[in-house]
Amino acid sequence: MSHGKQFTLYSIVFGPNGWKVEMVLRELGLAFETIFLDPGKNEIKAPEFTKYNPNGRIPALIDHLNDDFVVWESNAIIYYLIEKYDTEHKISAETLEDKVIQQQWLYFQASGQGPYFGQCGWFTIVAPPEQRNPVAAERYKKEILRVFGVLDGVLATRKWLMGDKFTVADISFVMWNEIGIKGFVADYNGFNCEKDFPNLYRWHTEMCKMPSVGDTLGMRKSLL
Amino acid sequence: MSHGKQFTLYSIVFGPNGWKVEMVLRELGLAFETIFLDPGKNEIKAPEFTKYNPNGRIPALIDHLNDDFVVWESNAIIYYLIEKYDTEHKISAETLEDKVIQQQWLYFQASGQGPYFGQCGWFTIVAPPEQRNPVAAERYKKEILRVFGVLDGVLATRKWLMGDKFTVADISFVMWNEIGIKGFVADYNGFNCEKDFPNLYRWHTEMCKMPSVGDTLGMRKSLL
Repeated sequence: MSHGKQFTLYSIVFGPNGWKVEMVLRELGLAFETIFLDPGKNEIKAPEFTKYNPNGRIPALIDHLNDDFVVWESNAIIYYLIEKYDTEHKISAETLEDKVIQQQWLYFQASGQGPYFGQCGWFTIVAPPEQRNPVAAERYKKEILRVFGVLDGVLATRKWLMGDKFTVADISFVMWNEIGIKGFVADYNGFNCEKDFPNLYRWHTEMCKMPSVGDTLGMRKSLL
Repeated sequence: MSHGKQFTLYSIVFGPNGWKVEMVLRELGLAFETIFLDPGKNEIKAPEFTKYNPNGRIPALIDHLNDDFVVWESNAIIYYLIEKYDTEHKISAETLEDKVIQQQWLYFQASGQGPYFGQCGWFTIVAPPEQRNPVAAERYKKEILRVFGVLDGVLATRKWLMGDKFTVADISFVMWNEIGIKGFVADYNGFNCEKDFPNLYRWHTEMCKMPSVGDTLGMRKSLL
């Protein structure tokens, strides 16, 4: 930890999941240094990194003030940060039942938003040209709109996913929503976020104004 | 709760995620009644079910002895069951750091195993014939082998994912591994689980012998 900060965060510039963790670190006022790996040079598959995460994916976090404790999977990292460092529950639930519902949304994000939005990216942008596929891309664009619909319906009845309280459950969705709204479905079938999904739009717009979220999105943009 | 059991579990016969929860309920000796929805009749999208889970996916669990508390997302359900009902840590971690690592594996299962194995199923079996796609299927078969490789490498150094202790982290992988090994990649490029991934094979075989796992797999087979 030659950088002297409490945390080392391994990330990549392009992908959303390191930035998601950064938003939570900023919300909690925790000091961190981000090391950006270069997927083009296969640094996420190199032994210097897979010794931390055998799955060869970012993010991974090291807590130098807890015996260099290492954890990977972005939402498990968030779980660690709130359980250990949000003891006053600034951005996290307090009772067991609320913690469970918070996990429910985090799992929906991890299994229902991230992978499908990511597959849309694969079949439209990331894959080698011969593997890009319009039928598969169409499938995932439809799924993005379906997920937006689920979130919009829930947010019609409450300000934040957990009700009146802004939590990590909300933060977890920002990155892929931003990429989806402005990228994957921006020109899809006359998509208009404000008109089609007004509650989602209000929720996302409000979060983007928060320093933790806005500054992180700005930092990513400047590095892209 | 006319059935008189503590829990109602909403599931479908074909999909893996309801069965995963059933394995944990069995391990903890908790009494439950499973209601199988018929996706063919669109019952998972009907208001009678989406009032519990707005995402229209199984599983969802109701705890009738906790004010009819409702939770969905299989790994959030598992989190609820261990936090509330495994207070002696029979199948779950005890310290904060171990709980975080347990969540790490559960998130890897939810985001790195489930969605990719599921997409393999979509592009080979579930999709309408005109949407099945060999290029996409190939992508996901390769990803199944990659995930098997990650797990096999980790299990070369320990008996269970968490070390010496069998936990819900292990259970969470059984269903898709079973479907992957015997289905999706069974005939793929000379796949031989025991030879190619000996540690994964040992781990999976050992779990399948456990009553909670074996009985659940047997029940699913009898209903398919």
